[in-house]
Amino acid sequence: MSEYSRDFFLDLDSRDKLASFRDEFCLPEGMIYLDGNSLGAMPLSAKKRVADVVEREWGQDLITSWNKNSWFHLAEKLGDKIARLIGAGLGEVMTCDATGLNLYKLLSMALDMRPDRKVIVMEGSNFPTDNYMAQGLIKQLGRGHQIRFIEKEDIMDAITEDVAVVSLTQVHYKTGHLLDMKAITEKAHEAGALVIWDLCHSAGALPVDLNGCNADFALGCGYKYINGGPGAPAFIFVAMRHQGNATQPLTGWWGHEAPFAFEQDYRPANNIRQMLTGTQPILSLAVLECGIDILCRADMVEIHEKSMNLCDYFIDLVKAYCAGHGFSLATPRRRDERGSQVSFSHEQGFAIMQALIAAKVVGDFRAPDIIRFGFTPLYTRFVDVWDAVMRLKNIMENDLWQKPEYNQLTDVT
Amino acid sequence: MSEYSRDFFLDLDSRDKLASFRDEFCLPEGMIYLDGNSLGAMPLSAKKRVADVVEREWGQDLITSWNKNSWFHLAEKLGDKIARLIGAGLGEVMTCDATGLNLYKLLSMALDMRPDRKVIVMEGSNFPTDNYMAQGLIKQLGRGHQIRFIEKEDIMDAITEDVAVVSLTQVHYKTGHLLDMKAITEKAHEAGALVIWDLCHSAGALPVDLNGCNADFALGCGYKYINGGPGAPAFIFVAMRHQGNATQPLTGWWGHEAPFAFEQDYRPANNIRQMLTGTQPILSLAVLECGIDILCRADMVEIHEKSMNLCDYFIDLVKAYCAGHGFSLATPRRRDERGSQVSFSHEQGFAIMQALIAAKVVGDFRAPDIIRFGFTPLYTRFVDVWDAVMRLKNIMENDLWQKPEYNQLTDVT
Repeated sequence: MSEYSRDFFLDLDSRDKLASFRDEFCLPEGMIYLDGNSLGAMPLSAKKRVADVVEREWGQDLITSWNKNSWFHLAEKLGDKIARLIGAGLGEVMTCDATGLNLYKLLSMALDMRPDRKVIVMEGSNFPTDNYMAQGLIKQLGRGHQIRFIEKEDIMDAITEDVAVVSLTQVHYKTGHLLDMKAITEKAHEAGALVIWDLCHSAGALPVDLNGCNADFALGCGYKYINGGPGAPAFIFVAMRHQGNATQPLTGWWGHEAPFAFEQDYRPANNIRQMLTGTQPILSLAVLECGIDILCRADMVEIHEKSMNLCDYFIDLVKAYCAGHGFSLATPRRRDERGSQVSFSHEQGFAIMQALIAAKVVGDFRAPDIIRFGFTPLYTRFVDVWDAVMRLKNIMENDLWQKPEYNQLTDVT
Repeated sequence: MSEYSRDFFLDLDSRDKLASFRDEFCLPEGMIYLDGNSLGAMPLSAKKRVADVVEREWGQDLITSWNKNSWFHLAEKLGDKIARLIGAGLGEVMTCDATGLNLYKLLSMALDMRPDRKVIVMEGSNFPTDNYMAQGLIKQLGRGHQIRFIEKEDIMDAITEDVAVVSLTQVHYKTGHLLDMKAITEKAHEAGALVIWDLCHSAGALPVDLNGCNADFALGCGYKYINGGPGAPAFIFVAMRHQGNATQPLTGWWGHEAPFAFEQDYRPANNIRQMLTGTQPILSLAVLECGIDILCRADMVEIHEKSMNLCDYFIDLVKAYCAGHGFSLATPRRRDERGSQVSFSHEQGFAIMQALIAAKVVGDFRAPDIIRFGFTPLYTRFVDVWDAVMRLKNIMENDLWQKPEYNQLTDVT
């Protein structure tokens, strides 16, 4: 049926240079967790860190923690660490707020920097919060901006001389297809447009080289591949050459040039601190550092190589063992065209995913028909790929997904 | 010198109905913490709650926690609890984002609802992040809006027929003066304006009756008198009659009518959920509930009565024991004109506060010359007032504030 066996994958694990990172994460007994692209697993260090920030920093040091425990500079410190994961420099990244808010800031700045242009190019089918934020902004501005929604094959042609900003997510949340950051950024700059890269599904999963691609702006998520915890603060990148040229409009006191002068009027900080709005959620921010620190010790090239191998094996095994069951690969087959996830479309996708979760293989479902599996090389083993597909095979061969309880739609994220 | 003695205050504590709440908080040994108006003390229940949310909900339940542990509805659930503290109804309050962002949302909505009016009335000397957010918004809109900065005695006269929105903080962050929510709201409505109340220094400290005052909008902070933890998410109130009449512009997917339909275009939820932007910081949000739950068990009228007593005694004792040392009361003397803090101006305020902190009396300093003491009846004892003033007396009589190390300016919050 195929040349693979469970021992083959166990052998791969025994030779995996990243294998020991798995010991740094909390993973429930018996669960194969393939949803780290939605919520990354918990670094074990988070237990101690959160207890310390609550009991000592908040409980004992109280208000003095803003200085004594450097709360006030935590957002910036974490930004500088994330910079190393995404090809950015010191002082170009801030960790703050949520992804949508950071996109809103960047879009507003980009439109200000291209006042004579009215078009935003976006991939309409990607995760819609980016669309929604852009729609909210242009409605609010009321200056005739419009969004040119296109799909990936039409991106290059859509970047014309009337485009103010190209706002794209590097890896597609459903299909996992990967856009060519360098080529698209170049094309945009040739047309006089700016580019915002949403790295939600790429930061921490594959090598990203923002400055190598001459990117203008970027943002991304702390709770997926960075393993920062549920709803961890997001990050925002502004290329050094743009800092001070535009002001993000959510002008809270943390972005003021002199926040503790309590001046009546806003004066924007001339650097990455202007991206800040107000007080950040310190508990969530502190714990995010645990996830970042693990990634900073790993080699992103090795992570990417393992990610591609995990995904390839998963695709091969589904093809070999679940053929004839109606799965259609939604993710590009080529390595240079995809991120660290594999998606299949299947008309019974929702029920199949429920059956998989019951069998302790946790992926997720995205309407209308996508089942999605994220591969997180720091804590996913090769043998997990084998075991997951064997459980899927069992579900399909025995029609286990047909149980009524797997066919009740509920909210999922 | 005065009729008071330490025993007098010990006796008050022995008869204090709220005294037992102190046992529910972590308070460092020997410290008199009078800065709960900047960062509230840690509820002891936070230790267990944060460990549970990290180790079980994140670590074990992972992505299923969005449903299983109701993460997705946490912001709304906490909003409904906060509603009870501020005179709001179910479905009128959401817990999300930070105060400045919530003000931005409300101001944008209010200006949309009064398209023919261009003036925002604000108290210029209050905590400036509100000013800054308003300035960022009107600059971004570019439609000729202007802010009419006035001080408290001129508020009523400033509310003229050209005013779109009156945006005020109920209790002044520096002086502690309390505005008359009912009278100002009435005056604004007579003039056809809307009102936004910033409750940062009143929620959890004194009875607030938003609906009794017919307020339109409000927002407030989770980490001061609500004791929600450093940078805890803020809250936002939209009176039921306004819900669906305007859309806040930070239109992330959590505010969509059907977030899990992943539609390309934004459709605003017709209720308080539209105030949400994106994923909230779950660790910080979960811990905030600990602070809210304690307050919900206390009687706000008793809290207010004790707060006023603590403040009165503090003022009396400073007058009696620190006379001639240059303190000038910056807080109104009348109970109905102030919040739960006492401020003095003193030209050596910074150094005096440093000396007090070294003597384990923690208040804070606000430039240029204000020393500020917050009184939090749930964990502040009457005897703390006595002890704090005795330490201040010692500092002043022995010129301890003149030590060089107390005269180096550093960031404080």
